[in-house]
Amino acid sequence: MASRIKRILLGRPLKSTELGEQKLRKTKALAILSSDALSSVAYGPEQILLVLVAIGATAFWYSIPIGIGVLVLLTALILSYRQIIFAYPHGGGAYVVSKENLGLSYGLVAGGSLLVDYILTVAVSVSAGTDALTSAFPSLHPYNVPIAVVFVIGITLLNLRGVTESASVLAYPVYLFVLALFVLIGVGLYRIAAGDVSPELHASLGTPVAGISLFILLRAFASGSSALTGVEAISNAIPNFKSPAPGNAAKTLIAMGALLAVLFSGIVFLAYYYGISPLPEVTVVSQIAEETFGRRFLYYFIQGTTALILILAANTGYSAFPLLAVNLAKDKFIPRMFTVRGDRLGYSNGIIFLGVLSIVLIVAFHGQTEHLIPLYAVGVFIPFTLSQSGMIRKWIREKPPGWAPKLVINFIGALISFTVTLMFFLTKFAMVWPVLVFLPIILFVFYRIRRHYEAVGEQLRIASCEPAVPIEGNVIIVPVSGITHVVERSLNYARSLKAEQIIAVYVPFEREEELRFEEKWSKWKPDIRLVTLHSPYRSIIQPLMRFIDSVQRKAGESNYQVTVIIPQFIPRKSWHNILHNQTSFMIRTRLLMYGKDIIMTTVPYHLRK
Amino acid sequence: MASRIKRILLGRPLKSTELGEQKLRKTKALAILSSDALSSVAYGPEQILLVLVAIGATAFWYSIPIGIGVLVLLTALILSYRQIIFAYPHGGGAYVVSKENLGLSYGLVAGGSLLVDYILTVAVSVSAGTDALTSAFPSLHPYNVPIAVVFVIGITLLNLRGVTESASVLAYPVYLFVLALFVLIGVGLYRIAAGDVSPELHASLGTPVAGISLFILLRAFASGSSALTGVEAISNAIPNFKSPAPGNAAKTLIAMGALLAVLFSGIVFLAYYYGISPLPEVTVVSQIAEETFGRRFLYYFIQGTTALILILAANTGYSAFPLLAVNLAKDKFIPRMFTVRGDRLGYSNGIIFLGVLSIVLIVAFHGQTEHLIPLYAVGVFIPFTLSQSGMIRKWIREKPPGWAPKLVINFIGALISFTVTLMFFLTKFAMVWPVLVFLPIILFVFYRIRRHYEAVGEQLRIASCEPAVPIEGNVIIVPVSGITHVVERSLNYARSLKAEQIIAVYVPFEREEELRFEEKWSKWKPDIRLVTLHSPYRSIIQPLMRFIDSVQRKAGESNYQVTVIIPQFIPRKSWHNILHNQTSFMIRTRLLMYGKDIIMTTVPYHLRK
Repeated sequence: MASRIKRILLGRPLKSTELGEQKLRKTKALAILSSDALSSVAYGPEQILLVLVAIGATAFWYSIPIGIGVLVLLTALILSYRQIIFAYPHGGGAYVVSKENLGLSYGLVAGGSLLVDYILTVAVSVSAGTDALTSAFPSLHPYNVPIAVVFVIGITLLNLRGVTESASVLAYPVYLFVLALFVLIGVGLYRIAAGDVSPELHASLGTPVAGISLFILLRAFASGSSALTGVEAISNAIPNFKSPAPGNAAKTLIAMGALLAVLFSGIVFLAYYYGISPLPEVTVVSQIAEETFGRRFLYYFIQGTTALILILAANTGYSAFPLLAVNLAKDKFIPRMFTVRGDRLGYSNGIIFLGVLSIVLIVAFHGQTEHLIPLYAVGVFIPFTLSQSGMIRKWIREKPPGWAPKLVINFIGALISFTVTLMFFLTKFAMVWPVLVFLPIILFVFYRIRRHYEAVGEQLRIASCEPAVPIEGNVIIVPVSGITHVVERSLNYARSLKAEQIIAVYVPFEREEELRFEEKWSKWKPDIRLVTLHSPYRSIIQPLMRFIDSVQRKAGESNYQVTVIIPQFIPRKSWHNILHNQTSFMIRTRLLMYGKDIIMTTVPYHLRK
Repeated sequence: MASRIKRILLGRPLKSTELGEQKLRKTKALAILSSDALSSVAYGPEQILLVLVAIGATAFWYSIPIGIGVLVLLTALILSYRQIIFAYPHGGGAYVVSKENLGLSYGLVAGGSLLVDYILTVAVSVSAGTDALTSAFPSLHPYNVPIAVVFVIGITLLNLRGVTESASVLAYPVYLFVLALFVLIGVGLYRIAAGDVSPELHASLGTPVAGISLFILLRAFASGSSALTGVEAISNAIPNFKSPAPGNAAKTLIAMGALLAVLFSGIVFLAYYYGISPLPEVTVVSQIAEETFGRRFLYYFIQGTTALILILAANTGYSAFPLLAVNLAKDKFIPRMFTVRGDRLGYSNGIIFLGVLSIVLIVAFHGQTEHLIPLYAVGVFIPFTLSQSGMIRKWIREKPPGWAPKLVINFIGALISFTVTLMFFLTKFAMVWPVLVFLPIILFVFYRIRRHYEAVGEQLRIASCEPAVPIEGNVIIVPVSGITHVVERSLNYARSLKAEQIIAVYVPFEREEELRFEEKWSKWKPDIRLVTLHSPYRSIIQPLMRFIDSVQRKAGESNYQVTVIIPQFIPRKSWHNILHNQTSFMIRTRLLMYGKDIIMTTVPYHLRK
């Protein structure tokens, strides 16, 4: 039943050898990996204006130089990541690059921030998309949280189905969004060129502004660069590309950078030229669209595709998180289960983990995740800085042919990323301080997990220590609850093992019961020794454990192995279990935790009715 | 650690032989078993006035004849239950009496309603008590639900400590409440006798009232008789009394009836004489107390003890529910675990179950459980009617000396109870219909559980069927995950069992891995046969199950038994388990549910670090 539902939702299981067919073509990869970056066009320019509006509308012209600054940063990042792609063709996330060039702890800082960040990406972007949707249909507003949760579940299922299938579904909205914004920017520029827009709506460039300061400009720049979150996704996901993976990934990265640059500068310019001021209820893109088309079809088309792409931006997290988790798990910093491929060849544990945690975040913040945005941006720029710095180290150390220009590119990238990170801490400390708490905790956990795995490996390795103690004979203990078929089968099995000794143990709560049972037993199985352990406190486990302990001590002296054979009847339906006292189960659990080398054997007796 | 906390909260475990010391003296029994009945004085008279107020204040004089009607019902119930106590000295709840005299299904209807009812008692009375408390301290109002939950947990712990200890703690508030009401009634009557209260406050008896109807009077009567819920508690709890249990129980019952009658009629009379009208915010008892004492110490004393006793009324549920559950469990209608005595000799599973379900109800209804009161009253009067009818059948059938007056008493009791039940259905159907849904479901579950237990008993009984298939040899399968100490220990154990055949099984996901492992194996354990099962879908369980299945089929032909030995390493701390793929655990679970008679042996290997 459950497995039928799974098949319908996820499709048939795939063979390991079908992995190649699951790889991405460039057009699909662009859609699936750039939705996060492209969607930030919907809020990035607005972030700049939100800072400048504190000074006054005349300050808006500064959005043009700030926008140019962001474009420079974008260019630097794209070029740097292109270099990373070729230098780390097996997937060069910030984790791998920082680890190999700067050292393990730097790598873990980068990996840890990204891990948390992808969860934030999913929560933030799905919440934002849901907000956009329910703004259009206000009657849905009270259901924001359940709607967002349903979206997360939907995206999780899509990703469990597998990479290419989710790409097919997700490609259309991304391209529609790009198309919609192209039309908007094109028509807007045409109207400006045709003189339809009054040039008096905006202050001209260079107008002196009272009260402007370098601090505010840097803050506006930092806010604007939150539009660049997501550009690292492609470099993490190189293994998902069809071969030649690095070449295809690099081309996709350039295409994404170009699209992002065009859309971002278009929106910044139109907002400036139209003299748009950020409003609490209506987004900047929405104002531009209304200005350009009026509230007609194209306006709604732009609003609709924006809502969609915000939701789909979550998908970038789904592509990158499991791959990063695999890298961390292979290095033994997180549980090994993250390396297991599911039925559909995706890393299902990572996908499910990401889905569950983002749902937790959405529910915990009642779907109002906007104030997580700065936190999320910092979580991106820390690994940006680390990976760029890592590349600098690499070029200096290896000095391959033509390393000098490469070094310059990465140096500029590192410098700007570092500045942006610093700006966030200086100008928005109240919102980004949790990073300083999470990161040390995450690093601590990473190292603890690694230490555990290493200790286990050490102990299991055959080469490492003395040979096992030989087993020279067997003592079998059978706890019995009565004279039944279940017990009989267990005793028969015990006999078939030709052990040195078989002891049946009965735990009566009252004296009369004890005598009665001993008498019955001597008639039923006179050849098997019965020990009764009277239990005045009505506990079966405790006297039994004490008894097993004493047998174990004696058996140990002559290298005999103690086995406890537990008779267990299995009801035909699993809910029947609540009708039976789970004594067998409790005996087993206690023995397992007990720390002594008792072997446990379960002899099942399956009920037919 | 957990067991230390348990000891502090519950005290040391008690031996079975200490049971006698846990029995109740009459004074304690009265406190512990009558808090429910006595506390209903706090709301019963008010219920009558609430119905009459719909007609007008002149109709309030009807509360006197209605009150007399309730007293008659009370007398009939007390006398009937006194007869039941002597007829069923081992605890004559409605379940036992109805079952033995009317037939099983009637008994189960009575038992089922009471079971649900005790849960409602706890939820309703704790919520009511919390309301009374937070009315006094309005700043606590937003925390109603957590406060009520804490009270339930407290009462649950008290009851887990054991019967007598909880009685000691609970006796004071009950007697204080009785004392407080006695003072109130005494002073009130004195003031009336002294002429301090104007006789013009109330309409005199017999004043004609426009709009009164038999329907309204019956409805008022039914509402008033909700003050009688809880009188059956003593007859259920006879086994908790010191011997001679029936005599002591009967005396306690009469004492409780007398107290209830005095308090009830006193409150009804004072309310009538003072001309008190029910108000939404202030209870009738509170109005009487204010009228009598003003807002001074005695007023607060009465309010405080009322709040306390309402909370403690829950305790009646805790005394009666576990005993009823034992009776039902002995007859195999509910899970057997309800018959197990805990460390402190109380039936802890029943106590915990009751606590958990009432917390669920309180949380689900946000602590507003008032509208559950009619449901709860019906759930009481159905078993009242059934047990009285059962007694009628008993007297007619057995005709013991002096049966005629006994018959009359039970007949009157049955008739009035039946009328009250009918009134509830006729006048408050909107609130009591769920009974008609719950009861059939509960009965269905009861019968299903019984059928299961009978089927199991049948199958396990040695006498009943053919002897077990003999075991003529053993085949051992050891799933191996690598060349480690864990595997080595399992293989050594397998060898020590002198089985006919030992097969190690390895499940590789890739071809190269397969060859590499086979080669290593042939060097390590050349004498043990290795089977590799290549798994293209990356599942370990499925190919393994298919293999075990085929071995099992072949082994079955020659009466060989198949045993799967599962090597399992046990981490030193249990949270470490999430770091390891739980393959051993999954193999075990699948084999258990599998339905074939495969024996499973776990060979633990305890990690030291």
